Amino acid sequence: MIDVPEPAKPEGVADEVWAQMLAASPVEARRLIRSGDFTAPTSGLCPGYAQANLIVLPREQAYDFLLFAQRNPKPCPLLEVTEVGARQATICATDCDIATDFPRYRIYEHGQLVAEVDNVEDYWRDDLVSFVIGCSFSFESELIEAGIEIRHNTMGCNVPMYLTGVPCTPAGSMSGNMVMSMRPIPYDQVVKAVQISGAIPKVHGAPLHIGDPAAIGVRDLAHPEFGDPVEIREGEVPVFWACGVTPQSIVMNSKPPFAITHAPGCMLITDTKNIDLKE
Amino acid sequence: MIDVPEPAKPEGVADEVWAQMLAASPVEARRLIRSGDFTAPTSGLCPGYAQANLIVLPREQAYDFLLFAQRNPKPCPLLEVTEVGARQATICATDCDIATDFPRYRIYEHGQLVAEVDNVEDYWRDDLVSFVIGCSFSFESELIEAGIEIRHNTMGCNVPMYLTGVPCTPAGSMSGNMVMSMRPIPYDQVVKAVQISGAIPKVHGAPLHIGDPAAIGVRDLAHPEFGDPVEIREGEVPVFWACGVTPQSIVMNSKPPFAITHAPGCMLITDTKNIDLKE
Repeated sequence: MIDVPEPAKPEGVADEVWAQMLAASPVEARRLIRSGDFTAPTSGLCPGYAQANLIVLPREQAYDFLLFAQRNPKPCPLLEVTEVGARQATICATDCDIATDFPRYRIYEHGQLVAEVDNVEDYWRDDLVSFVIGCSFSFESELIEAGIEIRHNTMGCNVPMYLTGVPCTPAGSMSGNMVMSMRPIPYDQVVKAVQISGAIPKVHGAPLHIGDPAAIGVRDLAHPEFGDPVEIREGEVPVFWACGVTPQSIVMNSKPPFAITHAPGCMLITDTKNIDLKE
Repeated sequence: MIDVPEPAKPEGVADEVWAQMLAASPVEARRLIRSGDFTAPTSGLCPGYAQANLIVLPREQAYDFLLFAQRNPKPCPLLEVTEVGARQATICATDCDIATDFPRYRIYEHGQLVAEVDNVEDYWRDDLVSFVIGCSFSFESELIEAGIEIRHNTMGCNVPMYLTGVPCTPAGSMSGNMVMSMRPIPYDQVVKAVQISGAIPKVHGAPLHIGDPAAIGVRDLAHPEFGDPVEIREGEVPVFWACGVTPQSIVMNSKPPFAITHAPGCMLITDTKNIDLKE
């Protein structure tokens, strides 16, 4: 793992669990999460390893979503697509149960959020396909190494994520607008942030927008649709990256009968190193 | 278009048609090919624009192949996947008929090559999905600009392509070994060739192997499974790139009931500039 300063403890996490998570390898972190002890956002944990978003759909909708991801690689860079019905990931991690190893999940029926739960064992079905999607938390450790502060990390809160006015390229039954995560960056570090993140397209790569939120249809930085607002200081500019919560915007818009996603910010910690995604 | 030396005229092409092809823009080249006047390999034409491979499968097999491409991005970087039944490309080119705009096509039934034809209008069906895959011809113009000779180009023949012993990652019903194209490169230009091609992963990117053909299961450079053999001179090393003919190896191995592909070397010339694939 990369040696970077520890993130602040998220609210509601027990000191002992937090200490274990800070010391954990990716597989140990997944086991702690699997046990139900840790249900908080994962930003800052296991620096150097890729973190991942999730959308699970029935096989009936899987072709449309796979094509959607192919047409929208910025918000939906696929790290792994599982076999139909399989709960185990095998490519981005081993000893990895998709149904238990994310801290929190959301259940959608016909585009409506109907439940938020710590595991989805009771919701699992034989016809489900899991799409594991790269997360921008992955490159945060490299930004920190380069001397760039990650505000939600130092504040101990979730990253702010906004439902933008930027449409994705539709595919079959799947369409909707893009979600973007935002990090305030000092003007003199913006180019560095672009170059460092741009080197890893599999975890969203370079930002999609720098500056005026209105240009991408974001009206109020203080009220993100997902996650928490963060402070933007004098001399900082809001920088927006494509976000793997985009599938949740697509589910809300396209209304498939059933979908499981991770809860925004509560990611899978994979065994895949960022450096192995740079090829 | 990039200003690079003209390739040698392929055998059997009329002087007048060749002159027209050398002067053509991508859309003009597609129209000439559509008219049936040009049925030869396309290497060296429309320098600076991406060229593309093709595999067309029934919707029944499309999910498996789309997943195969996701798992094997080196041989199968997707530039576009068409809507079911649509003959028109809309993303990588406009005014582009998939069924006529490749110089030559191959028809496969249950993994057997049953016909090679100049267009596939008579074979088209309402349930077909076209996968348009980046081709390494695309970066050849940049290699030439950098002073690297492309041997099959100066010889006026097709690039040599080898069925290797390197297995692809299977997906559903799709499995088989990778096909790689080979270009002899002088030792002192190998690093430059890696860096230039590596900048464009959407047209296969960096080579997969440099040197001893036996290491990738290629026994006889003089007898490529596809295309023509080329001369390898003193001080040159064979450099192998993942090839978009790989789907034909997959079709021969996996035996889907029906498939259409391009004939190796006879590519679609797209409207997409190489530089726009570097993002």
